[in-house]
Amino acid sequence: MEYSKLWLDYKRGECSGFDRIYYNSDDRCVVSAARELQSAIGEMSGIYPELAERRELTDENGIWLLCGKNDGKYYDLNMQSYKIEEKDGSIIVASYGAAGVLYGAFALIRKMRLGETELTEEKTPSNPLRMLNHWDNPDGSIERGYSGNSFFFKDGEIIINERTRDYARLIASVGINAVVINNVNVKDEALYFITDRYFGKIRGIADIFADYGIRLFLSANYASPIDIGPLDTADPCDERVREWWRNKAAEIYRALPDLGGFLIKADSEGRPGPFTYGRSQDAGANMLADALEEFGGIVIWRCFVYNCRQDWRDRKTDRAQACYDNFINSDAHFAPNVILQIKNGPVDFQVREPVNPLIGAMSFTNQMMEFQIAQEYTGQQRDLCYLIPYFKEILDFKMCRHPDCDTVADYVSGKAFGNRLCGVCAVTNTGNDYNWTGHDLAAANLYGFGRLAFDNDLSAEKIAGEWIEQTYGGNTLVMEIVSDMLMRSHAVYEKYTAPLGVGWMIEPADHYGPNPDGFEYSRWGTYHYADREGVGVDRTIAGTGYANQYAKPLAQMYGNVDSCPDNLLLFFHHLPYSHVLKNGKTMIQHIYDTHFEGVKDVREFIRLWRKLESVIDDGVYRRVKERLLMQLDNSVEWCDIINSYFYRKSGAKDEKGRRIY
Amino acid sequence: MEYSKLWLDYKRGECSGFDRIYYNSDDRCVVSAARELQSAIGEMSGIYPELAERRELTDENGIWLLCGKNDGKYYDLNMQSYKIEEKDGSIIVASYGAAGVLYGAFALIRKMRLGETELTEEKTPSNPLRMLNHWDNPDGSIERGYSGNSFFFKDGEIIINERTRDYARLIASVGINAVVINNVNVKDEALYFITDRYFGKIRGIADIFADYGIRLFLSANYASPIDIGPLDTADPCDERVREWWRNKAAEIYRALPDLGGFLIKADSEGRPGPFTYGRSQDAGANMLADALEEFGGIVIWRCFVYNCRQDWRDRKTDRAQACYDNFINSDAHFAPNVILQIKNGPVDFQVREPVNPLIGAMSFTNQMMEFQIAQEYTGQQRDLCYLIPYFKEILDFKMCRHPDCDTVADYVSGKAFGNRLCGVCAVTNTGNDYNWTGHDLAAANLYGFGRLAFDNDLSAEKIAGEWIEQTYGGNTLVMEIVSDMLMRSHAVYEKYTAPLGVGWMIEPADHYGPNPDGFEYSRWGTYHYADREGVGVDRTIAGTGYANQYAKPLAQMYGNVDSCPDNLLLFFHHLPYSHVLKNGKTMIQHIYDTHFEGVKDVREFIRLWRKLESVIDDGVYRRVKERLLMQLDNSVEWCDIINSYFYRKSGAKDEKGRRIY
Repeated sequence: MEYSKLWLDYKRGECSGFDRIYYNSDDRCVVSAARELQSAIGEMSGIYPELAERRELTDENGIWLLCGKNDGKYYDLNMQSYKIEEKDGSIIVASYGAAGVLYGAFALIRKMRLGETELTEEKTPSNPLRMLNHWDNPDGSIERGYSGNSFFFKDGEIIINERTRDYARLIASVGINAVVINNVNVKDEALYFITDRYFGKIRGIADIFADYGIRLFLSANYASPIDIGPLDTADPCDERVREWWRNKAAEIYRALPDLGGFLIKADSEGRPGPFTYGRSQDAGANMLADALEEFGGIVIWRCFVYNCRQDWRDRKTDRAQACYDNFINSDAHFAPNVILQIKNGPVDFQVREPVNPLIGAMSFTNQMMEFQIAQEYTGQQRDLCYLIPYFKEILDFKMCRHPDCDTVADYVSGKAFGNRLCGVCAVTNTGNDYNWTGHDLAAANLYGFGRLAFDNDLSAEKIAGEWIEQTYGGNTLVMEIVSDMLMRSHAVYEKYTAPLGVGWMIEPADHYGPNPDGFEYSRWGTYHYADREGVGVDRTIAGTGYANQYAKPLAQMYGNVDSCPDNLLLFFHHLPYSHVLKNGKTMIQHIYDTHFEGVKDVREFIRLWRKLESVIDDGVYRRVKERLLMQLDNSVEWCDIINSYFYRKSGAKDEKGRRIY
Repeated sequence: MEYSKLWLDYKRGECSGFDRIYYNSDDRCVVSAARELQSAIGEMSGIYPELAERRELTDENGIWLLCGKNDGKYYDLNMQSYKIEEKDGSIIVASYGAAGVLYGAFALIRKMRLGETELTEEKTPSNPLRMLNHWDNPDGSIERGYSGNSFFFKDGEIIINERTRDYARLIASVGINAVVINNVNVKDEALYFITDRYFGKIRGIADIFADYGIRLFLSANYASPIDIGPLDTADPCDERVREWWRNKAAEIYRALPDLGGFLIKADSEGRPGPFTYGRSQDAGANMLADALEEFGGIVIWRCFVYNCRQDWRDRKTDRAQACYDNFINSDAHFAPNVILQIKNGPVDFQVREPVNPLIGAMSFTNQMMEFQIAQEYTGQQRDLCYLIPYFKEILDFKMCRHPDCDTVADYVSGKAFGNRLCGVCAVTNTGNDYNWTGHDLAAANLYGFGRLAFDNDLSAEKIAGEWIEQTYGGNTLVMEIVSDMLMRSHAVYEKYTAPLGVGWMIEPADHYGPNPDGFEYSRWGTYHYADREGVGVDRTIAGTGYANQYAKPLAQMYGNVDSCPDNLLLFFHHLPYSHVLKNGKTMIQHIYDTHFEGVKDVREFIRLWRKLESVIDDGVYRRVKERLLMQLDNSVEWCDIINSYFYRKSGAKDEKGRRIY
């Protein structure tokens, strides 16, 4: 086996047998659902049920998969909802839509494996779109990939094999329904994914995806009319450009009728965009949306737009403000088939950021949350960092914009303003490594992101438990230890890295490991201003004013040192090392303590993991142990460098007299 | 023209005509000398003299090139010495050796161009070996190259064309007599330069070089017996390895009878070496020397051996000590055909380092000085930095090891201990750019290094003047301004970069631009330990003890804060920012002042250069102006970042109230 089955590794004895599976539709998703159930039950019970098509429910005993009208409204939630019932010795899985039947079938398998006695369940996904963004490049490399190379591309060619299907099965099993297969930085050969050079093979992937209710999206280069040619402009108001895209859309949809649409990174980090032509972001997005509209395509427009050539001397310009500033005045300007894809925080996927103030601030505009499970800034799948508790915290956060229906989840799911095109996506953490995610335990983030996207009400702990049990079986020690490690891991990573929300004390070259001044004098707009007196960024009104992008209660909370949560204190304030935190410690002592603690926690992870030797699979044991030892090295490096950095600046002695360099 | 003629750009009117050039030998160097004179005089006077061979001096009028016994002792100084005399209307250039005749001919051309009326001269080169090290890779890239790509290699192929010859002419004209054509980091295709895959083409280059008295050397991989195969060891004491090299040497010298030998980087920065097998450096070098000995080949063994995986927490291990420590106990152990190649300073080509303490410390061992005219740490040929004044300072420095004959020049030239195999080399700054050296004015370093190597007594200013006049003609304004800029440039670069000898505050990724903590927590052993109180490395006895590697008077001078020269103060001492320098300023104020001054000086360079618009060639004017503007940006960045860094640490206000961030 070249790759792990992850959580779809069915084990004998996980369920009892069924003789028959009936299904009422030849829709590909319903057929997939039937086959998934058949093989799952077969592998677990040893008896493979027979499949049989029936127009309608009869009194024959078995598992029934019933699909309703299936009107093709792909993003409608009722097409994706399911109901499981037990009735007269049969189990009925029903949905209006074929995708809903598939989700119900996977839910049933999960319930059987987790030994749930209560099978009856009705579920509607929390979010219409539950998407993964691949940053895979045609040459096979993956930008910010930590799990090997791409399983979609190699040397400019598209790969289609059994792994493609198993990938679709894995992510469909947790409810993912959309995948962008290529990097948002569209360069070189990827330019031509929207030309007939690649249509055939992309169609091949799209077809496999379609079997599992997944829409394929492509990242496209905003400047395609120039880079593919023959135009010399990509001005969205130039009729030649508009026509170019209309023709292009028609050409694409002839070849790829199910294409979801485009993901666009424009005017960002050197990528071209409408700003290049003095046009607004909505002018650019709408021009593309207009071209895709008649084919049902949508445009997902990233809001990661900021000046990446900032002067470090300039303390007034604040990169954190850019996202909100660049979009807030365009509400109601965006076409109905445009979705703004907004990163969870205002900067860039740090281990701790406040929620992006643009979330919920535009009532007429489709919004989608962008998370990152590729652990670019959170340990790169060498360090353990289960992100679901943090994502959950974000989704539950109240923006104070409306009296009710005010959580981040309410806004991005469409509940607050009644949007149909919205949801959550994540930059994914997969690659062609045996274990898919570099760190075996990082698969919990892939599983967890899907599950959380499907059901915002699930707790991070429940998700972890599901994942562990399905992946490693139900051994109590395994369940306890792995769950404990996962649940603590984000907090541990936060302890030993940049303190109190200040972020960015990382190595600029690869974003791994500590480098306290790594970005301090650079062009990236990410500074901490540490000097001999203190550290942090004043984002109050007296400072950059960023805090005022939030609704008043939040603006006040963040703007005031006393009410600002400690874990974001240095994100919002420049404070002296002697500042006393809510826990009664001085800031400098807190920095020392948390860093030493973080290392201690990693040692504790190792101690715990050692208990699983010969309890858990040997390969898993060995691979995770290796990663934990790397994490220990990394945490020691972080601890010593961050503490030494602040000690050398502040001169403050550690109260406990520990070694600082 | 694809490339500039540099200082061999002869201009009409620079000399009067001669009818005849007589020469008494068909040795290729003598023939080259005759042809060089012929074309030089032809181009300058408009009349091309005829060439004629004569066994002996007759009373015919003309220029006479007379070669003596030419016994083939390549590295003997009398083979390379020349004498120019005027006699009965003829000019006689004579030498024992053919190379000496060539140097005499180039000297005569130079004298004519510089308008010297006194032609009579006797010269013996100061150094037997005057070498350039290319860090060119087979793919055409150049490690630390700032002047385009290699003119020796492209895509794994060797290039031989007119430029190869013009390169040989250029460097021979300033007395270079040895060239290593490939990078000391021997990898990939370069492994096979010592196999028959490349012999033919390398012979082609060697033949062109031989026309100009230049020996071709190759960098070889110490682990060749493994990497080329078929052995599984490179242990210098393993008889199979010794035999492998003996056979290899025989094979090489059959194909390349004039090969000078090998340059070896072993046990350094990940390169394999004898330490890998628990053997000493001399065991490794001698094993190779033994193989080359019967063919007259020599082994140049780099002393750049240090632990590049140091722990930044460890303040006792001092990379500066490594070179001396790794070699000092092996004196008299090295074979007679081994030369140790020693970098000018103990660390790595910083803008200011003390002289390497190994120089002159081994009386039985051949030593050669390694300079770097590739401006890796001195502005990368974007910033102007004429290095000859600094090299001159180094060569004139007294090591206090012997009552007389004690300068660095005395040791590396062989004068002090009577060595015949020794001299100076430089990592070269050339590439296939039109102007060869990226920055037009950086050609002064190539010219100057050769001239200084040939004649240690020349002043940096004299060399600059020669170069300017031959390159740009004798316009007074050009002479004055360019000379002034060159002569000040090293000091200016030193002012705006890392202060007082502490070094290493550069960007780790590319070694250009400021990054004060860039290496502070890294594995490279180059730290400055700046904290809120002070900065610098204590290398006294109380510190790492490095100062004691020098002879007692120097150890005392450096070891004492009061006698240590200010420009090396932080190399040897960790001192508070309030420390008062010999100029009466506090260290912190000196840092602020010199950094602001450095920027002011660059602005002054630009002001001066602007005076040459339409005085100097337009292309030169434009190219240099561009570079000066880049240098201004760089100097501002250095000034602001270094000052801000120290201001944030020290809290000390600038006495003059200038803006620090």
